[in-house]
Amino acid sequence: MKAVRLQKYHQHPVIEEVPEPRATGPFDVVVKIGGAGVCRTDLHIIEEQWAEKSGVALPYTIGHENAGWVHEVGPAVTNVAVGDTVILHPTPTCGLCHACRAGDDMHCPNGSFPGIDSDGGMAEYLLTSARACIKLDPSTQPSDVAALADAGITAYHAVRKAVPLLYPGTTCVVNGAGGLGHIGIQSLKALTATRVIVVDRNADALELAATLGADETVLGDGKQVDAVLDLTGGNGAEVVLDFVAEQGAQQDAFAMTRRAGSHFVIGYGSNIDIPTIDIISTERNVIGNLVGTYNDLVELMVLAQAGKVTLHTKKYPLDAALDALADLDAGRVRGRAILTP
Amino acid sequence: MKAVRLQKYHQHPVIEEVPEPRATGPFDVVVKIGGAGVCRTDLHIIEEQWAEKSGVALPYTIGHENAGWVHEVGPAVTNVAVGDTVILHPTPTCGLCHACRAGDDMHCPNGSFPGIDSDGGMAEYLLTSARACIKLDPSTQPSDVAALADAGITAYHAVRKAVPLLYPGTTCVVNGAGGLGHIGIQSLKALTATRVIVVDRNADALELAATLGADETVLGDGKQVDAVLDLTGGNGAEVVLDFVAEQGAQQDAFAMTRRAGSHFVIGYGSNIDIPTIDIISTERNVIGNLVGTYNDLVELMVLAQAGKVTLHTKKYPLDAALDALADLDAGRVRGRAILTP
Amino acid sequence: MKAVRLQKYHQHPVIEEVPEPRATGPFDVVVKIGGAGVCRTDLHIIEEQWAEKSGVALPYTIGHENAGWVHEVGPAVTNVAVGDTVILHPTPTCGLCHACRAGDDMHCPNGSFPGIDSDGGMAEYLLTSARACIKLDPSTQPSDVAALADAGITAYHAVRKAVPLLYPGTTCVVNGAGGLGHIGIQSLKALTATRVIVVDRNADALELAATLGADETVLGDGKQVDAVLDLTGGNGAEVVLDFVAEQGAQQDAFAMTRRAGSHFVIGYGSNIDIPTIDIISTERNVIGNLVGTYNDLVELMVLAQAGKVTLHTKKYPLDAALDALADLDAGRVRGRAILTP
Amino acid sequence: MKAVRLQKYHQHPVIEEVPEPRATGPFDVVVKIGGAGVCRTDLHIIEEQWAEKSGVALPYTIGHENAGWVHEVGPAVTNVAVGDTVILHPTPTCGLCHACRAGDDMHCPNGSFPGIDSDGGMAEYLLTSARACIKLDPSTQPSDVAALADAGITAYHAVRKAVPLLYPGTTCVVNGAGGLGHIGIQSLKALTATRVIVVDRNADALELAATLGADETVLGDGKQVDAVLDLTGGNGAEVVLDFVAEQGAQQDAFAMTRRAGSHFVIGYGSNIDIPTIDIISTERNVIGNLVGTYNDLVELMVLAQAGKVTLHTKKYPLDAALDALADLDAGRVRGRAILTP
Repeated sequence: MKAVRLQKYHQHPVIEEVPEPRATGPFDVVVKIGGAGVCRTDLHIIEEQWAEKSGVALPYTIGHENAGWVHEVGPAVTNVAVGDTVILHPTPTCGLCHACRAGDDMHCPNGSFPGIDSDGGMAEYLLTSARACIKLDPSTQPSDVAALADAGITAYHAVRKAVPLLYPGTTCVVNGAGGLGHIGIQSLKALTATRVIVVDRNADALELAATLGADETVLGDGKQVDAVLDLTGGNGAEVVLDFVAEQGAQQDAFAMTRRAGSHFVIGYGSNIDIPTIDIISTERNVIGNLVGTYNDLVELMVLAQAGKVTLHTKKYPLDAALDALADLDAGRVRGRAILTP
Repeated sequence: MKAVRLQKYHQHPVIEEVPEPRATGPFDVVVKIGGAGVCRTDLHIIEEQWAEKSGVALPYTIGHENAGWVHEVGPAVTNVAVGDTVILHPTPTCGLCHACRAGDDMHCPNGSFPGIDSDGGMAEYLLTSARACIKLDPSTQPSDVAALADAGITAYHAVRKAVPLLYPGTTCVVNGAGGLGHIGIQSLKALTATRVIVVDRNADALELAATLGADETVLGDGKQVDAVLDLTGGNGAEVVLDFVAEQGAQQDAFAMTRRAGSHFVIGYGSNIDIPTIDIISTERNVIGNLVGTYNDLVELMVLAQAGKVTLHTKKYPLDAALDALADLDAGRVRGRAILTP
Repeated sequence: MKAVRLQKYHQHPVIEEVPEPRATGPFDVVVKIGGAGVCRTDLHIIEEQWAEKSGVALPYTIGHENAGWVHEVGPAVTNVAVGDTVILHPTPTCGLCHACRAGDDMHCPNGSFPGIDSDGGMAEYLLTSARACIKLDPSTQPSDVAALADAGITAYHAVRKAVPLLYPGTTCVVNGAGGLGHIGIQSLKALTATRVIVVDRNADALELAATLGADETVLGDGKQVDAVLDLTGGNGAEVVLDFVAEQGAQQDAFAMTRRAGSHFVIGYGSNIDIPTIDIISTERNVIGNLVGTYNDLVELMVLAQAGKVTLHTKKYPLDAALDALADLDAGRVRGRAILTP
Repeated sequence: MKAVRLQKYHQHPVIEEVPEPRATGPFDVVVKIGGAGVCRTDLHIIEEQWAEKSGVALPYTIGHENAGWVHEVGPAVTNVAVGDTVILHPTPTCGLCHACRAGDDMHCPNGSFPGIDSDGGMAEYLLTSARACIKLDPSTQPSDVAALADAGITAYHAVRKAVPLLYPGTTCVVNGAGGLGHIGIQSLKALTATRVIVVDRNADALELAATLGADETVLGDGKQVDAVLDLTGGNGAEVVLDFVAEQGAQQDAFAMTRRAGSHFVIGYGSNIDIPTIDIISTERNVIGNLVGTYNDLVELMVLAQAGKVTLHTKKYPLDAALDALADLDAGRVRGRAILTP
């Protein structure tokens, strides 16, 4: 089959032929890919940011945001059958460890992260496990929902954690209105009555944000921190969802939080550097976020099915994967780029 | 009356005569000081770390950890009377703002912080408000409990916030077993069944920690991060309470947290600098902490009265305030230094 | 001034002349009433249901849902001034007890409940305290918002407590779409993405519910429990908000909850009688609800100002108070009846 | 093998020969029983209280509180091996449903409850699943810990849910100091600093309670509600853990809760009957409790291993099962009766 393979760090991936995966273990599931999202993390993987953390051996197939149809199942699989339309939780898990038994799928020490630490879904077929599959209505087009499998779940997970902080009268800043941010905005509108301020360097992204329900938009022109403070009576926001967290955005995001507020780090790339006296004198928090739980993705599919979260996507055939990566890198994608068969 | 006054930053305070405060406002309360704690924050004030944040005008009286006897009350005060033994919440508040109406006393925008941003309690008398007073049993010696008014409430507040994370089977690191840390250890033992690992550079402090219930002690000899990882199967701790947060301790503290864990910053002094990829790839948090609520202090007094939290103090007469500050700076105080009348 | 006074239980109140109240205490506030809501509790008071609990001495003025303009203030009042437009939290509190210091206004042991245990607002003027006042935009008509002061805060408080249970994919039943219920529906739509099923015996009330966002409506025709079970795959709802809780509705409401679900009792009147084996074999809860906190009312005013909660009211002049009570008793009021000056 | 079988409701079970179970499914685990607890629920099963709820067909083997050694495993089992010492979570679950994915094992719609709705552990061997097994140190005697598998987890689960309500200064009533109650007392002491009042009709049980850390004991002589009110300044307790919930104890328990307090129903047998006006005028809750999660049992084993929870047991050979049931029924068991091989 065809697959998008990273051969060397700091070089473009190549599209080449590799053997199809097979369902040999009791819970294995092979999925025929119907949609594979293209994510800033794919760029960071190529830049070698994940090399040490993932420990993956090159070459391998990237693509960690996948939906499709069940193609083959292992002998102990009971929850899906060949032909089912599925979206895939990004981290297949063991189901038996403390984290799995608490519903914290993304912290399973025995889990994998296809596309990060093993072969992913920018290919014709993907090997995953029964525990990663969420069965969808057969009429669903996988390429229409694939972006929910990583961008979606990650944005939703952060919003879900922030809900208790976002009662009426509060403000939430969405820092970055791209692939994750545009889902974050809609999740905030669906789950809270907070006021949403969206910050982005791109005016088009702000326009999209406004149509998705942003109460205020702020252009990231260098004066964005002051602008947010002005919009919040000089106080800052109870919550800042930082979907960027690189090139200074992470410092801005902390500066935009108010006393007793929380800075949710969701994007990544640069270091955050804060005087501890600033943390304690105002009792502010920096909150880590990593994809989400299986149930988070189930809930998000409910919102999607109800039309409360809609995706803005740009589709490319699998053969054009390098174009999609280049467009993302150059800021030419509104919403999310999706590879299709 | 005599008072310990900061005249110039980076110079020793001086003990001099100033007028006694009077209860002129409706809720004013003047307290005759029976015990005033000496805190690392007093050193940081002298070092000018708080100058910009507090905006205080020099000269002024330091001392933000106070207990004593009610000396004079304003006309609308109903909850205490002249002669009552009291411990003082460190931040007198308005009672009417959103934070006060939610019980978050330390975030009242109309509050003050005597000893930080206005005249404090290293003096014979202190002006505070009715809302800051907690009435104690008349037999209580203020100098025996004063350290609970800031060191105590701060350590307790952090522990109280961490309780939901510290179910049986977890580990909590106490980074720094000094004035705050030794109360933190006891609060952890009173409120949780977590395993407590105490880290300190001072072997005597570790010995005290062990008598207070520490399950493990680790000498801060440069290999403390590895030692904590070894004690936790290579994972780190669910919670690290960082009572130091300067000179590298803050970086160690973050490195000691496990996946999905939380680093509670309680001390301060240096910057914390973390790659955002480390925050998101493990979903770890950095949690700010600032003194505590009025009810936190009420609860802590319950623990103290029950003998579940006992203070290790070293008492100095008010006239020896500079000796106490010097001893603290030189690491010669086990537990907390207290000034007495 | 004119006031609606209960002279004897089980008899109609009478409208008579009484002296105007005066602001004699330091925090007293006298409010000129602009709108006073008429509540099922007023009927229950007349029926003597509250006599023992409130301990009120007859005759007294009823009316516990009030908004208006500040008419006179005591000497220590700082948060409002004469002429301010205000809505009143129903229970003036002490601000110093444990409950007040935790933000749980309705549990202040020193609080009062004007209209229940002391003179209320079905009159030209009402005596309350500074702590009960929420200042509104001067353009607000008190009669337009008065219903938020008790019906609103009570419905909102219950919804606010239920929010963590009502993630996407869940169902919430609103049992009773009257004065409280119609605010509950809107609060649910504003704060959650849960599916809302509304049950009422009155078809007109269901029609109003549908326009307010109810996803499903069920006529209370005796088969309502089965209807709810049918709509929930035989399982019942995660949360049932029971705004009726009399004449069997309370038994229905419990029967409509699913395994691990919660029955929020908000209305009252009859006993609830459940086999404990039914409680434990399904781990279901019965949750009490009593008005709400000051901050609950502040938040609700934010929703109201944003147009996310709108009131359906029927206005009567103060002189027609008995007509309003009779209309309510006869089920002739959609939304809430309000007395105006 | 020998098994204790219920042939007819309202008759004594009989001990008879039945075929040994076999591990035929992929996750099946057959456990050689080392200890099987005897529970009041076994009496209630015989009394036919569970017949309709469980739908079990007679005859069947009772016994839902089990520990032992792994005897045989199905082909997909990876977490335990033949010979391992194990304690068994009472409800084997599917691992794939919403409840399992949230860690709420006891609400798995595909789970079973051996000893309640299928063959249980009062036998030589028990069929369970891999997901129910918690591996123990090989030196553990199953009969020493078996009581934790149902009495323990149930008491611990309720305490764990109550922890956020039981801050210092609060009171918790333990209503009934038998098999569950004596574990509840120790769990409360391990996880909280609340004051514990224990109520029981049996003076010996109260004596045991005092040695386990009860702060106050109250004899259930008909004046127990007044006694609890006296001990709590007339207010009642923040939490009442009702391990009895029959013969009037459930009414007492609710009457012992204070304003804004919670009555945790853990035992069962009679109806609870409360005026809804009492629920709403004080905002009190009735909280259902059902065994607990897998992780609850893991945590409890940590407490047990640390000596923080110790069991008081009375051991009987399997052949004396009827004596054990009779002793329990007659109130002759302090702590828990355990059947041994």
